[in-house]
Amino acid sequence: MSTATKAFAAYNATDDMAPFSFERREVGPRDVKIEISYCGVCHSDLHQIRNEWGGTVYPIVPGHEIVGRVTEVGSEVRKLKAGDLAGVGCLVDSCQSCDNCKKGLEQFCRNGSTGTYNGKDKHLGGVTYGGYSQSIVVDEHFTLKISEKLPLEAVAPLLCAGITTYSPLRHWNVGKGTRVAVVGLGGLGHMGIKFAAAFGAEVTMLSTSPEKEKDAKHLGAHHFALTKDPAQMQALTGKFDFILDTVSAPHDYNQYLQMLDTDGVMCCVGAPPTPSQIMAFSLIGGRKTLAGSLIGGLPETQEMLDYCAEHNIVSDIELIPMRDINKAYERMLKGDVRYRFVIDMASL
Amino acid sequence: MSTATKAFAAYNATDDMAPFSFERREVGPRDVKIEISYCGVCHSDLHQIRNEWGGTVYPIVPGHEIVGRVTEVGSEVRKLKAGDLAGVGCLVDSCQSCDNCKKGLEQFCRNGSTGTYNGKDKHLGGVTYGGYSQSIVVDEHFTLKISEKLPLEAVAPLLCAGITTYSPLRHWNVGKGTRVAVVGLGGLGHMGIKFAAAFGAEVTMLSTSPEKEKDAKHLGAHHFALTKDPAQMQALTGKFDFILDTVSAPHDYNQYLQMLDTDGVMCCVGAPPTPSQIMAFSLIGGRKTLAGSLIGGLPETQEMLDYCAEHNIVSDIELIPMRDINKAYERMLKGDVRYRFVIDMASL
Repeated sequence: MSTATKAFAAYNATDDMAPFSFERREVGPRDVKIEISYCGVCHSDLHQIRNEWGGTVYPIVPGHEIVGRVTEVGSEVRKLKAGDLAGVGCLVDSCQSCDNCKKGLEQFCRNGSTGTYNGKDKHLGGVTYGGYSQSIVVDEHFTLKISEKLPLEAVAPLLCAGITTYSPLRHWNVGKGTRVAVVGLGGLGHMGIKFAAAFGAEVTMLSTSPEKEKDAKHLGAHHFALTKDPAQMQALTGKFDFILDTVSAPHDYNQYLQMLDTDGVMCCVGAPPTPSQIMAFSLIGGRKTLAGSLIGGLPETQEMLDYCAEHNIVSDIELIPMRDINKAYERMLKGDVRYRFVIDMASL
Repeated sequence: MSTATKAFAAYNATDDMAPFSFERREVGPRDVKIEISYCGVCHSDLHQIRNEWGGTVYPIVPGHEIVGRVTEVGSEVRKLKAGDLAGVGCLVDSCQSCDNCKKGLEQFCRNGSTGTYNGKDKHLGGVTYGGYSQSIVVDEHFTLKISEKLPLEAVAPLLCAGITTYSPLRHWNVGKGTRVAVVGLGGLGHMGIKFAAAFGAEVTMLSTSPEKEKDAKHLGAHHFALTKDPAQMQALTGKFDFILDTVSAPHDYNQYLQMLDTDGVMCCVGAPPTPSQIMAFSLIGGRKTLAGSLIGGLPETQEMLDYCAEHNIVSDIELIPMRDINKAYERMLKGDVRYRFVIDMASL
């Protein structure tokens, strides 16, 4: 009763990704089937195909920045109909009944949310397969409506890079006049700049790469500072209300905490694989906060997409055919992408 | 024009404290002179006489939990008059004109607040001398009004241990139904329990010492868990909205962060001398906050003292004569004090 679906998978932690085929479930009463047009390439994809976070089940089909057109909907589906544009982000299931789910924080479901790939598939058993594939079948609750106004390929990264940066900026009330620093100009960082600037903040880009200054300003940053220059860093002591740290390589948190003003907040959305050393004094002096944030729930993801449609915000992308994915990973590891690879799934 | 004042001082980082005499300034138009009745013994005193934080100027006269009676006030002083009870906490000066001072956050003065001891004395030059002394002369703004209703010796520790715990509990809106854990049952921790319980929270004491369970419950804790028992710790996963961490010895922050529920806050008021290792995942999963807090400003310190008078809250103390201070430090290092030493300054 299920449908054979073409895809690209990693068969183990070391080999190149290669063609794969698996079964998608039939469309149930509350399900939406989406023909995938584009899928963004997130750094998590690479972490997981290489099993760097542990727990990877092979073959793994990554991809959680999914956009496409609805081809079929179940009898109870009201949100979407065949022919509509739709998206799927990092989650495809949760209990939908716990307090966090009811608050729209499905990413923190008490009973465990299901990742779009390498999650425990509630319907067919086994693991979930992500967006490096022809199509996906998803509970309507975990689909997003996508505007026809924006270039679809550039919308795909909003489903992870977009919401991951939008959510903490909203949660900590970044707005007009907030002095914001964004650390790291990659897939997350470039969206962080765009959103913070759109919200009216005064945005400073903190980067290791002097050649990124021009881009940062083009993306909306008002200022740029080089994190390798101690004098520039020192000059920023106490200058920010909010720091969005998008870096997932190990780095010195205390250096950034000292740039926060009284009651300032630094929020990590990148997760370095090793622990960071924090001096309690870095937090105590100035009543500072170090926090974390994880993607965003479904209602907020829809809010973000609607905001982007209204304000004409999309990701800056490089469109690649499926066969170039292995090269893309190599370039991504070197930070050589401006600022998100998106796979044209027609090339599958 | 100044007044010779008897005191106890540390002359270097290793010798016992010993008698000392220094000059207090004459009472200026905005100054209050207080005959010191009692002075609490804070762990910071010991850190500083041993120069463990660096920057100690010898001889050092510690003490920033000061209560006594006003003996003289300057011509412009309105808050207090001779004969009134008064207190002095950790600060004796700040610019009083920057935005933080104007917000009543004198501890974060942009131009640098002056510590009650080992601070840079704005009036006489040299360093400030604290409360292990006969009397103190302080700008009225940095004095606190003390109720006659409470046992004065047990009020002294409120000026540091009290406000240090009261302020973060208020800042993060701990109240009826908040699930609070207090880590470490010492001078700070015992006040943390009292305030959190008074505010209506459900309070759990987390301690390394099983023998402290009875005390913790007597102080107002509803529950007790032993931090050395992995099963008890595991059972507390996700159980708290707010954790007040009063421990200044190195310890594993991640263990406590995992006890926070979604959007939970862990606030450090103890400052371990070495960095703590934080996994970003500990914060990202559940959008958690690790924060710090430093004493409290003057208006909030007065609010806290008024709250204590109204709700009959004081510190649990052991009163000692001045000559026992060196023994008291040795006992404090072993955690052998329930829960604050206070010096009877009449014994000087």
